[in-house]
Amino acid sequence: MGESSLALQALPGLAEVLPGEDLAPLLCEALARAGMSLAGGDVLVVAQKIVSKAEGRFVDLRDVEPSAAALQLAASIGKDPRFVEVVLRESSTVVRAAPNVLITRHRLGHVMANAGIDRSNLPAGEPGAERVLLLPVDPDASARALRAAIKAATDAQVGVVISDSFGRPWRIGTVNVALGVAGLPAVLDLRGGQDRHGRRLETTQVALADALAAAAGIVMGEATESTPVVRIRGLHWSVPGSDSRALLRPVAEDLFQ
Amino acid sequence: MGESSLALQALPGLAEVLPGEDLAPLLCEALARAGMSLAGGDVLVVAQKIVSKAEGRFVDLRDVEPSAAALQLAASIGKDPRFVEVVLRESSTVVRAAPNVLITRHRLGHVMANAGIDRSNLPAGEPGAERVLLLPVDPDASARALRAAIKAATDAQVGVVISDSFGRPWRIGTVNVALGVAGLPAVLDLRGGQDRHGRRLETTQVALADALAAAAGIVMGEATESTPVVRIRGLHWSVPGSDSRALLRPVAEDLFQ
Repeated sequence: MGESSLALQALPGLAEVLPGEDLAPLLCEALARAGMSLAGGDVLVVAQKIVSKAEGRFVDLRDVEPSAAALQLAASIGKDPRFVEVVLRESSTVVRAAPNVLITRHRLGHVMANAGIDRSNLPAGEPGAERVLLLPVDPDASARALRAAIKAATDAQVGVVISDSFGRPWRIGTVNVALGVAGLPAVLDLRGGQDRHGRRLETTQVALADALAAAAGIVMGEATESTPVVRIRGLHWSVPGSDSRALLRPVAEDLFQ
Repeated sequence: MGESSLALQALPGLAEVLPGEDLAPLLCEALARAGMSLAGGDVLVVAQKIVSKAEGRFVDLRDVEPSAAALQLAASIGKDPRFVEVVLRESSTVVRAAPNVLITRHRLGHVMANAGIDRSNLPAGEPGAERVLLLPVDPDASARALRAAIKAATDAQVGVVISDSFGRPWRIGTVNVALGVAGLPAVLDLRGGQDRHGRRLETTQVALADALAAAAGIVMGEATESTPVVRIRGLHWSVPGSDSRALLRPVAEDLFQ
């Protein structure tokens, strides 16, 4: 990459995103109101939650009939069986279950808590509703669509990262990672490179999109979700873009299944 | 936190760090040459490798006698038994071993590949030497010392993060995390907080120091290690600092032992 500086700027003034809304014009209008330009090479990091909201990925737990498997798992970990049912529907395998912990491999391939299903920062919906919010159906496709719409509206060829906060097995606290990527390399592959002493490099692949998501997470404001969009300026890349699948370790290489 | 913008700037012009050198004056001189100021609230992210070099944490593999356990493990994973011996000496437990993979819990508590021992980006040493570089003895203490020396030299009360690149179990590519932290909260604890709809927050702890390390990693230049120091400006925190131990999940809570 060879960046020497990077500037992150949160996008202020974005209102609550409603189901069915088109994100691209909302973002472009908020950018214009804030006097924030977009230029080629900028990366917009967008919180998964507003993408899911725009896509209407709400489920009302009152409508969910838990399976026998969900009932049994829910009892063993102390979670709402309807919630567990939704997690299982979104997942290919359960990776770990323990009291108040449910880590699965999401059908998209990401290993994460609760299949990424959120209960916080949701508008109430109709009275009595118990809403949860699923991940976007295809975050890479969502990122590509947002990128194309922004290009059409502003002529700027930006990169887009759709991010979510993940826990880590051995470390306390969440960091944001990339669920969807468009227009930039999700992973920088340095294999075959040399260090400055002519030795073969040991660290050979750098998770650029995850690092960008982590950086943006610092300014996103987890507590209030007030700024779910961050512009990152100063990146330069010369390799083709790749989507979030480049970040997923193949199941066959998983030592922690 | 409530940041709305963040600026990352790599420190150019730092020469190879030699054993026994004092990092603080080297950094302050390089900052002055680059015309980069330091102000209270700035965070300096410093690559582990230059801290280890300054501390002279080199081991020459020619001096290492592998134990029976190291010989056996090395044969099963296809690594140099002397290297495996050094990894085991630095570690409390082996977490996973597989062909060409050795993940341990470092005696500092971090679960990482090869106990963080590097073979790349090392100067040659004497002819025939086969040098490897261990982590600093106590990265939090190294961070505190650097912070104090910078305060003495510049009067700026900065935060310091000592970072290293880590692999992740289910994701491709490395991201940088914090091995040492001084003068800022390693973890932001949002427990008890509410979202903007008055619901209790689900994401309750944010790994701030790891996110800062990840962000700095984007500009550090992995391939050349040309810029192992990054200044991050724009953070504001009101809670006390904590060291890197705040980032370590207790072994008793490890579901992936």
